[in-house]
Amino acid sequence: MSKPRLNIGIVGYGFMGRTHSNAFRQVSKFFDVPYEPVLKAICARNRARAESFQQNWGYDSVETDWKSLIERKDIDVIDIASPNDTHAEIAIAAARAGKAVLSEKPLGRNATESQAIVEAAEKAGVPNMVWYNYRRVPAVSLAKDLVNEGKLGRVFHYRAKFLQDWTISSDLPQGGEGLWRLDARVAGSGVTGDLLAHCIDTAMWLNGPVDSVAAVTETFIKERKHNLTGKIEPVGIDDASAFLARFRNGSLGTFEATRYARGHKALYTLEMNGADASIIWDLSDLHRLQYFDHGDKGTLRGWRSIHITDGDHPYMKHWWVPGLQIGYEHTFIHQAADFLSGMAGGIVPAPTFRDALATDYVTDAVLAAAKNRDWQKVAGA
Amino acid sequence: MSKPRLNIGIVGYGFMGRTHSNAFRQVSKFFDVPYEPVLKAICARNRARAESFQQNWGYDSVETDWKSLIERKDIDVIDIASPNDTHAEIAIAAARAGKAVLSEKPLGRNATESQAIVEAAEKAGVPNMVWYNYRRVPAVSLAKDLVNEGKLGRVFHYRAKFLQDWTISSDLPQGGEGLWRLDARVAGSGVTGDLLAHCIDTAMWLNGPVDSVAAVTETFIKERKHNLTGKIEPVGIDDASAFLARFRNGSLGTFEATRYARGHKALYTLEMNGADASIIWDLSDLHRLQYFDHGDKGTLRGWRSIHITDGDHPYMKHWWVPGLQIGYEHTFIHQAADFLSGMAGGIVPAPTFRDALATDYVTDAVLAAAKNRDWQKVAGA
Amino acid sequence: MSKPRLNIGIVGYGFMGRTHSNAFRQVSKFFDVPYEPVLKAICARNRARAESFQQNWGYDSVETDWKSLIERKDIDVIDIASPNDTHAEIAIAAARAGKAVLSEKPLGRNATESQAIVEAAEKAGVPNMVWYNYRRVPAVSLAKDLVNEGKLGRVFHYRAKFLQDWTISSDLPQGGEGLWRLDARVAGSGVTGDLLAHCIDTAMWLNGPVDSVAAVTETFIKERKHNLTGKIEPVGIDDASAFLARFRNGSLGTFEATRYARGHKALYTLEMNGADASIIWDLSDLHRLQYFDHGDKGTLRGWRSIHITDGDHPYMKHWWVPGLQIGYEHTFIHQAADFLSGMAGGIVPAPTFRDALATDYVTDAVLAAAKNRDWQKVAGA
Amino acid sequence: MSKPRLNIGIVGYGFMGRTHSNAFRQVSKFFDVPYEPVLKAICARNRARAESFQQNWGYDSVETDWKSLIERKDIDVIDIASPNDTHAEIAIAAARAGKAVLSEKPLGRNATESQAIVEAAEKAGVPNMVWYNYRRVPAVSLAKDLVNEGKLGRVFHYRAKFLQDWTISSDLPQGGEGLWRLDARVAGSGVTGDLLAHCIDTAMWLNGPVDSVAAVTETFIKERKHNLTGKIEPVGIDDASAFLARFRNGSLGTFEATRYARGHKALYTLEMNGADASIIWDLSDLHRLQYFDHGDKGTLRGWRSIHITDGDHPYMKHWWVPGLQIGYEHTFIHQAADFLSGMAGGIVPAPTFRDALATDYVTDAVLAAAKNRDWQKVAGA
Repeated sequence: MSKPRLNIGIVGYGFMGRTHSNAFRQVSKFFDVPYEPVLKAICARNRARAESFQQNWGYDSVETDWKSLIERKDIDVIDIASPNDTHAEIAIAAARAGKAVLSEKPLGRNATESQAIVEAAEKAGVPNMVWYNYRRVPAVSLAKDLVNEGKLGRVFHYRAKFLQDWTISSDLPQGGEGLWRLDARVAGSGVTGDLLAHCIDTAMWLNGPVDSVAAVTETFIKERKHNLTGKIEPVGIDDASAFLARFRNGSLGTFEATRYARGHKALYTLEMNGADASIIWDLSDLHRLQYFDHGDKGTLRGWRSIHITDGDHPYMKHWWVPGLQIGYEHTFIHQAADFLSGMAGGIVPAPTFRDALATDYVTDAVLAAAKNRDWQKVAGA
Repeated sequence: MSKPRLNIGIVGYGFMGRTHSNAFRQVSKFFDVPYEPVLKAICARNRARAESFQQNWGYDSVETDWKSLIERKDIDVIDIASPNDTHAEIAIAAARAGKAVLSEKPLGRNATESQAIVEAAEKAGVPNMVWYNYRRVPAVSLAKDLVNEGKLGRVFHYRAKFLQDWTISSDLPQGGEGLWRLDARVAGSGVTGDLLAHCIDTAMWLNGPVDSVAAVTETFIKERKHNLTGKIEPVGIDDASAFLARFRNGSLGTFEATRYARGHKALYTLEMNGADASIIWDLSDLHRLQYFDHGDKGTLRGWRSIHITDGDHPYMKHWWVPGLQIGYEHTFIHQAADFLSGMAGGIVPAPTFRDALATDYVTDAVLAAAKNRDWQKVAGA
Repeated sequence: MSKPRLNIGIVGYGFMGRTHSNAFRQVSKFFDVPYEPVLKAICARNRARAESFQQNWGYDSVETDWKSLIERKDIDVIDIASPNDTHAEIAIAAARAGKAVLSEKPLGRNATESQAIVEAAEKAGVPNMVWYNYRRVPAVSLAKDLVNEGKLGRVFHYRAKFLQDWTISSDLPQGGEGLWRLDARVAGSGVTGDLLAHCIDTAMWLNGPVDSVAAVTETFIKERKHNLTGKIEPVGIDDASAFLARFRNGSLGTFEATRYARGHKALYTLEMNGADASIIWDLSDLHRLQYFDHGDKGTLRGWRSIHITDGDHPYMKHWWVPGLQIGYEHTFIHQAADFLSGMAGGIVPAPTFRDALATDYVTDAVLAAAKNRDWQKVAGA
Repeated sequence: MSKPRLNIGIVGYGFMGRTHSNAFRQVSKFFDVPYEPVLKAICARNRARAESFQQNWGYDSVETDWKSLIERKDIDVIDIASPNDTHAEIAIAAARAGKAVLSEKPLGRNATESQAIVEAAEKAGVPNMVWYNYRRVPAVSLAKDLVNEGKLGRVFHYRAKFLQDWTISSDLPQGGEGLWRLDARVAGSGVTGDLLAHCIDTAMWLNGPVDSVAAVTETFIKERKHNLTGKIEPVGIDDASAFLARFRNGSLGTFEATRYARGHKALYTLEMNGADASIIWDLSDLHRLQYFDHGDKGTLRGWRSIHITDGDHPYMKHWWVPGLQIGYEHTFIHQAADFLSGMAGGIVPAPTFRDALATDYVTDAVLAAAKNRDWQKVAGA
């Protein structure tokens, strides 16, 4: 008695194409999911690369036009792992074709695009989900449990930062293969949509809606060679972005992202301070949750470094034995597992397109506040 | 052949009265200073407490009126360690009386007060210094050396926070002995003047002037019993304060201070990211400097945890042997040593009153930006 | 043009059966290996469990007798992931049948068994390898590179420990499914063969042969219920084991392993101190190498925390992007990749059976020294 | 109403002369001690240096012969801070003269010397104490409280190491001013008496007597120029020393000390694993205690990093405010405070000479075991 199969058609063979493909390959080996996902088709304009990707990951077939992919009857799920400027068109068409739709983040290049996507998906009534993968880091999932249990009490502060250093060199070009994140037309924005979006998704999941923001953005290197035109062109993206926030629950937030923080490759850290307890998490030490419980006996209070590797920690019973860690890609496997379980149960797995739209409202407000040098009320908040 | 003596008259017997008294008692035992400081007089309105303090620390005499203290011919230095609302009046009178004047931070309750103090001191031409003690943490002094040597290259980011958790309980009263920092009339502001002022002093020392700021402040507990009136009164101070900054050198800054960060007693951290190197320092680990040098060989690059205990580290040859740490109070001893050396050499030791005024311009701008929900240009910047 | 296939027949479906199966499934997706490994057969006495394992991992077939497995012409590699008491018999038979043979560690229950295995494998001339997986943690591989480059200079000290806490409860039974490591007849020894063996393998790889040892072992809980007999029986294994070592290169070693170190699930740490540099590694932070270089400028010397996630770090270009971590199971994937590459090139990939025998000589000497309360010369050293 | 005065006569002006002098100067400023210690006399053979020391620290007088010092009626306490080879003669004479006697550690160069000292002191009935200062690190004192409260349950493991790197260079001479610790005739032994003695004192305080030991010692650099003779001479001390221990309570111990661990200036760490809880402490982070409590809720168990700066932590209410640290020298101030309080109450403050003798029995056993390559029963155990 074998499981029903769920046929995946993926668009894009880049970094995210790899993490998604791996997730669908691995998930049923570690989780008792109700569907067996099948790597049915990979779609990309560049046939040679698409075929190379197909061969490596074992996809059944190749498409070079996403419209053909969507038309195929044997595809159940369209998984969008292509650059940001393709999300809206593909997601809307896929929804209209009745496919379940998964999308990399951010959902659109801005909230206007995302709104159209949400409308299409909700009108079509198709399952939809965005790969904000960091929710499924076991330590972050445990943090969510603690919040839900009321362990933190009244929240006063939330702070997050996402620091990288890979674009400091002025020799780095913008645009094209592997560098589209530096091209504002393709990416929509710079670190605001790329990195802060992650921070905001987690923040609102843990601490509720953001009410208003003040922000600053900067483009440290003003011009770079564009790989598609071969010319020196103005850089349209934000290299760094920081904002102050008021959450609707009365707490204050500070957020910062940059690609100019020498010494940090991918330092996403978050901290939440409540009256009764506080938590800290750090992507560069992703298997640990720092937890301070004011309820501990006075002289023995301290930040607990909880090694999230036990069988009763979120997701961890599916892996190895206590003390042994998992890595970055496992967050995608966890999300795939939840998606498959949700599909069977008729539950739309979060973050949905609508959840991701809420994040885009914040990033839009951040960019507007930075431009206008004022405070911006977040739409929908 | 004994050293010339320098007679200290201190105002205030609180926390800072203790750190200053200890500094002047200890300095000549560890540093070859040109003057022997003498604990000549302690001045406080409460005679009983002043006498108790005198006896403990070995002061020669007691005064209960700071005006009498200033009139004394045998006092060379007036050291102000009393609450913020007394700084201006005492400092101005002391300067006019030709005394060297030292003051706890912040200099005034606001820049207007500080400006008057600066004018009086500069007109009188007396040596003057503010106890922003964290500059003299050996690790921070080493950071300054690295900046001066150009090790960091072009600076992109500066971030600092000062987190405490001691006022979370709503039962805590405001005002009076030991709690004047919660009384806006005495303190001037809350964490902005108390904690952010430290962060700003160090920041401008390391990274130059702040050009403009956007800010948010919050008072989480709106009313507290006032110890002096016995009544429930509105809380006038800011419990938390955060701001975004543009430095004049083009780098971005993020700053935050609070007394509502559960789990942190006095977590002052700072980080500076340059094109060539980055540094991190943390008061709760004060004897370490984290240093990332992009010039290291690629595969061996990493944050160096430098244990600042060697004889060639700033100030450390005066203490014990490599590997052995000093503590918080030593920063005041270092500042006293520099002050005494500066006195002899005719050099005004930094931070001077004028340096401290620059910090007050920033805190004023922060408070105004938070109130007006806009960006404020920093005065004098 | 597809790759030649290499058919794997695995014995055992436990923890190590899973890590090996995953390694062979994943390796060709991330490494350009010369063979495509095929999960051909899983062999275990319990047919139901074997079939369940087969279904989960996608093995082609099931065997319940390892002799049948070895007789199959379509099996190229016998991979032994069953309890220690089965290693010798299976490995010797597999070698005689001309199969490549892989074995979990320790190779035998003692050096006598291991010697017989080595002789059989070498006489048959078959490729052979033991899964001492920690050599392929990228940080440990980098440590080896540093040693090979002479970065450490003359070595003075090596220290390692492997601390667990899972057997503290006296209610825990010994023997049977999942607990055979507590049964001396099956396991051979306790933590000496299970945990110290890992420490010794890495130590000799990095620092050369061990000359002699003094040791202590202890069994804290003397009797436990035996799951196979249902009776309370004496515990034959060592719960804790520590030893002092002289390495042949003149350096001193200290080693310790236990399952009674409350708070540690799997804390394998190693440190090596050389005249010119030192290194520290820690399994609970496996993606970091701590490195101290005495050649750094004096005031800026410090332990570097190297985050081993860059493309030029060992194995890492095959995974994600800088800053993103991998986990425990990846060490097996790396070893599988090296094994497959070695197979194609005619190079026996280390650690070979003979390398593993050297480790067993040390563990035998440790057990003898503890028993005789003297120093033992290590055989073959 | 002033306190009774207690006149201190110190022998030695080196590193320890400084820490003791500072302790006696500072203690009554921070602790409400029943005596006011007076720096009455400094004694050293080199008059010029003694006078320089006197002037710096404010001693009333100078002696150049310790016999004259002991004869003085105005001296209450003889504090021995001179090299190890002087301890026995001075301590015995001082005790016979009816003085309270304090001594730096180790008490004698070996247990034979120490035994004679203990006998003299106990026969004379004079207060006596050895400056094993690390007991009074607040974090270590808290660890002792936890042990006393039974928080750890049955203890399985104790491990300690003391790592330095200051003698790696072969150019470093032995003997003479500042280097007598490298001269076996003066020091008695190398790191065994210098560093392991500290580890053993703390270990037996926390975990009870050591029953037996196996050990290894090494002298990496066999010959060094001797500063007193000017000739190249064999090095008589142990550069490194490690031992395995069985404690009388059934737990196992591992200990190691060296001056050849590149990267460590003074890394004294200790760890204790009990059935119910574990603790870790580290001199390079001396204001923290790491504490793991198995009684915490399963998913939230973690090592707590307790910042020992609160008013209810041992000794800390006498210092600053929560979050602010003290340093190395404060441990001596704490010990001076306990000594003075003990004097008034007629309680001999620990560690007494007898306690220190117990440590010397262990160090003697370690040296014998290393020499004889066997296990040694500890005398008196």
